[in-house]
Order: sequence, then C-alpha cells, then structure tokens
Amino acid sequence: MVARDTRKVTISAIADLAGVSVPTVSRVLNGRSDVAPQTRERVEELLTRHGYQRRPSSVRTSSGLLDLVFNDLDSPWAVEIIRGVEDVTHAAGVGTVVSAIHRRTSSAKQWLDGMRRRGTEGVIFVTSMVEPPLQDELRRLGVALVVVDADGLPTREAPTIGAANWVGGLRATEYLIGLGHRRIGFIAGPPQLMCSRARMDGYRAALEAAGLAVDDDLVCPGDFYHEAGFSGGVRLLGLADPPTAIFASSDQMALGVYEAVRQRGLRVPDDISVVGFDDLPEVRWCSPPLTTVRQPLAEMGMLAARTVLRLARGETVESPRVELATELVIRDSAAPLG
Amino acid sequence: MVARDTRKVTISAIADLAGVSVPTVSRVLNGRSDVAPQTRERVEELLTRHGYQRRPSSVRTSSGLLDLVFNDLDSPWAVEIIRGVEDVTHAAGVGTVVSAIHRRTSSAKQWLDGMRRRGTEGVIFVTSMVEPPLQDELRRLGVALVVVDADGLPTREAPTIGAANWVGGLRATEYLIGLGHRRIGFIAGPPQLMCSRARMDGYRAALEAAGLAVDDDLVCPGDFYHEAGFSGGVRLLGLADPPTAIFASSDQMALGVYEAVRQRGLRVPDDISVVGFDDLPEVRWCSPPLTTVRQPLAEMGMLAARTVLRLARGETVESPRVELATELVIRDSAAPLG
Repeated sequence: MVARDTRKVTISAIADLAGVSVPTVSRVLNGRSDVAPQTRERVEELLTRHGYQRRPSSVRTSSGLLDLVFNDLDSPWAVEIIRGVEDVTHAAGVGTVVSAIHRRTSSAKQWLDGMRRRGTEGVIFVTSMVEPPLQDELRRLGVALVVVDADGLPTREAPTIGAANWVGGLRATEYLIGLGHRRIGFIAGPPQLMCSRARMDGYRAALEAAGLAVDDDLVCPGDFYHEAGFSGGVRLLGLADPPTAIFASSDQMALGVYEAVRQRGLRVPDDISVVGFDDLPEVRWCSPPLTTVRQPLAEMGMLAARTVLRLARGETVESPRVELATELVIRDSAAPLG
Repeated sequence: MVARDTRKVTISAIADLAGVSVPTVSRVLNGRSDVAPQTRERVEELLTRHGYQRRPSSVRTSSGLLDLVFNDLDSPWAVEIIRGVEDVTHAAGVGTVVSAIHRRTSSAKQWLDGMRRRGTEGVIFVTSMVEPPLQDELRRLGVALVVVDADGLPTREAPTIGAANWVGGLRATEYLIGLGHRRIGFIAGPPQLMCSRARMDGYRAALEAAGLAVDDDLVCPGDFYHEAGFSGGVRLLGLADPPTAIFASSDQMALGVYEAVRQRGLRVPDDISVVGFDDLPEVRWCSPPLTTVRQPLAEMGMLAARTVLRLARGETVESPRVELATELVIRDSAAPLG
C-alpha cells in the first residue's frame, strides 16, 4: 500500500496540473468571476483531489465575529439586510459587527485597523463600490469576502449576491400590460448601475413582447431617490398624451410619483396606476399600499452570511454570482385601465 | 507628611461612611435610578474621594467591541439607532456587534454565551423589556449596561435614554390648536407603555391650556402599528361630528389614518389634518409629507454609546435617566381650519 501523500500541494503545482497560470488558480480560490466555468471546475477538482490547504488568513479567524460593512447606514433597506445576516450568524454563534465607512478612505482604514485587532471570520460588503486599496488589503490579509450588491454593479473581486433585476422589470411591466395599459411611463435608476439597466431592459422586453413600441417620451432619467420620482412624475403627467401607468424602478421614486399625482389633484390608482421596485417595509403602509417588485433583501443577507462563513472554512462556492428571485407584490396602486 | 493611603476601599466601607446600606452603594455604581439624588451625590463623592476601584467586569473588556441588542430587527427605526451608535463607536475604534434576541430566552442565552466568549466593553439594549434573568446575569458579570427605551417604560436596572414624549404630545396638539382646530382626535399607543401615556397627557394638557374640553369620543385606543391608525381613523371619520384634525401618536398610525381618509374619498390636509409622532425617515416621502414630532433616534443611539463607553471606563453617569428633546417637524399634512 502506498502511504497517503501528506506533502502540502502548492498553488503552482495545481496550476501546472490544470495547465493554467498561478493567478488563475488564485482567482478560483478567491471565488472571483473572471474564470471560465470549465477552467474553474477543473481547478476546483484538482484542489480537492490533492487536498490543497488554503493559506490561512493573517487575521485571527476564531474571533466569533463577522463584519457587515455599509457605505452608509442611511438606507431604508439596510435594516433588512442586517436582519438577514444576523439571523444566520446568531444561529452560528457568531457576532455581527456592523460598520459604516462613508466612502472615506480614512474611515475604511479605521474599520480595517479595528478588524485586524479583534479578528474576523469574514467580511460582507453591502455595496458594489469597494474601493480598490481596500480590496487589495483584504486580499492581502486573506479575509473571506462577499459583496451584496444591492447597487447591482457586478464586481470581479469577490463572490456577489444580488437580485434578479431584469426579470423584476419584466414582470412589473407585463402586469401593467395585463391590466390593459398601453402607454406605460418608466423612471430609470442611475445609468452607471447594472441593476438600473437590467430593470429598464426588462421594461422594454415586456413592451416588445406585447407588440408595443417603446416611446422614448415615456422614459425619464432618475437616480432611485424620491425627488427624481417626483420630477419624472411631473413631466410624465404634463405630457400632451400622458401615460396611464408609471413603473418607477425604485420604491422611493414611486412615492415621488405619488406626490406628483397628488399635487396635480389626481388619485392613484383611479387616475393613474403606479408600480415600484424594492418592496421596502414601509410601502405596504403608504396610501394606497404600493404594488411593487420585491427584492429579497433579508434573504440576500442570509445567503451572504452563509457564503462568507463557508469561505472562512476554506470551502469554495458554486458560483461567483448568485441572483435571488424577485417577485411582484400586488397591492392597491395599479388598477385596470378604465 | 502622610503617605497616600493605597489600601483598597471597599463598598462596605463606603456604605459605612455614607451611612447607607451596601446595596445602595451598588445601585449608585450601576447607575440605577432607585436612589435619592442627595444619597447618590454623597456616595459618589465618597467613591471619588477614596479612589474606589470598581470590581472589574468578569467579561473581557479589551475586546474593542460594544454590543447593541434589539428584541427584533423589524422596526423601521432600528437603523436610525444603529447609525447613531456606530457613529460614536467607529470614532472610538470600537466595533458594534448588532444582535436580535427575539424576546426568547434561548436566543438571549446564545447571545450571552457568544458575548462572554469574545468579550465586550458594554451593552446597549434597545427595549424597555430586558428579561429579569438576563438583567441578573449581566449584573453578575459586571458588564456596563445602558437601555435605550424607545418603548418608553422606565427601568430601574440601568441608566436609560429616551425622548421627551410629554412635550412632544403637547407641541403637536398646540400646533393644531394654533391652526384653528377645536375638535382634535387622538390615537393612543399601548396603555402599558409610559411613552404612550406621556404623549396622551401632553395632548390633554394642550387642550386644557387652550380652554378646550377633552372629548373622550375623540380618543381612540391604539398600539403604534399601522392597522390601529387605520381603524382609529375609520372610527373618527365616521362620527356624527367628526374631528377636523387627528394627532396619531406614532408615524405608522398616522399613515393608517391617511389610508382611512383615502378610502373615504377624502384628502389630507384639505379635508382633515394629520400629525404623527416619530419622524421615521420615510414619512418625509409620504403623500402628503407628514407633519410629525421628531424623536432624535440617532442622537439617542449616540448618547447611549457614549454613556456605555464611560461606564466601561469606570465612570459614573450624571443622571440615571436622560430624555432628549423632541421637535415638531412641519410638513404638509396639517392645514389651517378652512
């Protein structure tokens, strides 16, 4: 019998066996997305077969802590994500350290210093905008990292968890078409974010599938905030041939449309139907309760926590990008075309 | 010259010198409220003069962590409190561990076990309902504790930080009276909570100061949630002589009133004025934007964090109960009586 080979296998040996470069093996180990699926599969198979041991993180990982980092804690959906992450970490006996780094390098550095002192099992970033120096430092430290990109911009640096934005845009628009609407306004998100583009493409796809032309007059720019919804609503309602329904691609913008409708002396949904996107907890309490596309924020937080705890245990993840399903939640803000 | 006395002074010696019992000195050290002010002052003076060293916490306090514990993370104001706490801890280089214990003993125990393993500099509870066994355990461990009682029930077990509920109720009602309203409905919070009673007493005090009778027909029970605001609104609008304004003692109930008004085919503020209480971030975006009494939740979180860090350093606090000012935020939901 041959004794089990207990020598440590190196990344470079795996790279040789797989016929790829050392950086490619590193990318697989870090769960990055810029690796072809067949390559990823081959490398993972070799890593497993040869019992590759990850280089341990240089940060203490037995701290019983997981870091959840926001740019800012001013977002109404932050608490939903915290709730999901805390559900999983609490059950795992791990504490959730919540931080805000305010897109400032000094603030990020301070968080990093604290994290290195006390240790962490892994880090969840809730933002697509992880500053490159911070990414480099986390990579250098070997800390497990997952990005919840509620902003929707894919990153190539770590596994990301998002929502199915395109399908959500499609379903919202299909629903309005099903109610008989033919002129459906759209208020967009920030053009640089992938999730904005996905939602708008879903809107266009639904119109085209129904044989309806996309009228550029009915598409307004926006940024996901209330004010853009208000001004988009004002513009759309002021058209010579106004839409009978408006799909605002965020809940805050949908509430801005509500205000534009109210100020014009009209009513939702009697005079115009409105559909939002997000399903923030409070929109079930707006008047009328908002029909919207639900992003499963708490579930995204749960999956992020499970993923980062798995990475921390040295496991690899199935896919560098997971999108959870969105769902149309029908309430009272859209009505059949009268 | 007499050498400085370096012997350790005991609680029992301080009690003798102050002419009080040992438990009374303990209560002062724990920042509890059930001590007469003069007694507190005398004991604190003696503690300082004799250089009393607190018994160190039996939990590791150099962890660089502070615990922020909610019953549930389902509240729209949770993120405001987290934001305030994190602002202070971040600047102090301390991480904020956010937990939810769901009012379950097993869940609280799990949090406690994790906290003991990793250590904490102190604990902030956001709830007035800290279960007695948990309180006892924290006291036994000697962990610094502050309660943010957004629920409003004073506790005798630890310093508490709240908002000036009575003044808020007074100001909201005075404002409606100033707009010419004479029949002003009120929707109450849960009767067992002190903050509910304080808000209602403020409402009554404003009416009485203006020489208006309190009409019990205009006062509806409630529980701070949306549904109670809706049913209260339905009842008040259905009266033979309905009110011209409604003061709902929470924002969620105010939004419930909005929905009752809408379903009756009426409009806010044209047909009826509405004022809320809380100033949740989202009510500036409801339609019309809600006039409400602001509770300074982020500031309450900031003060709680500063206080617990001071207690952790062995300092005593000036007062076992601090109430931060509330403020009327005027938007568009209340109008002069036409």
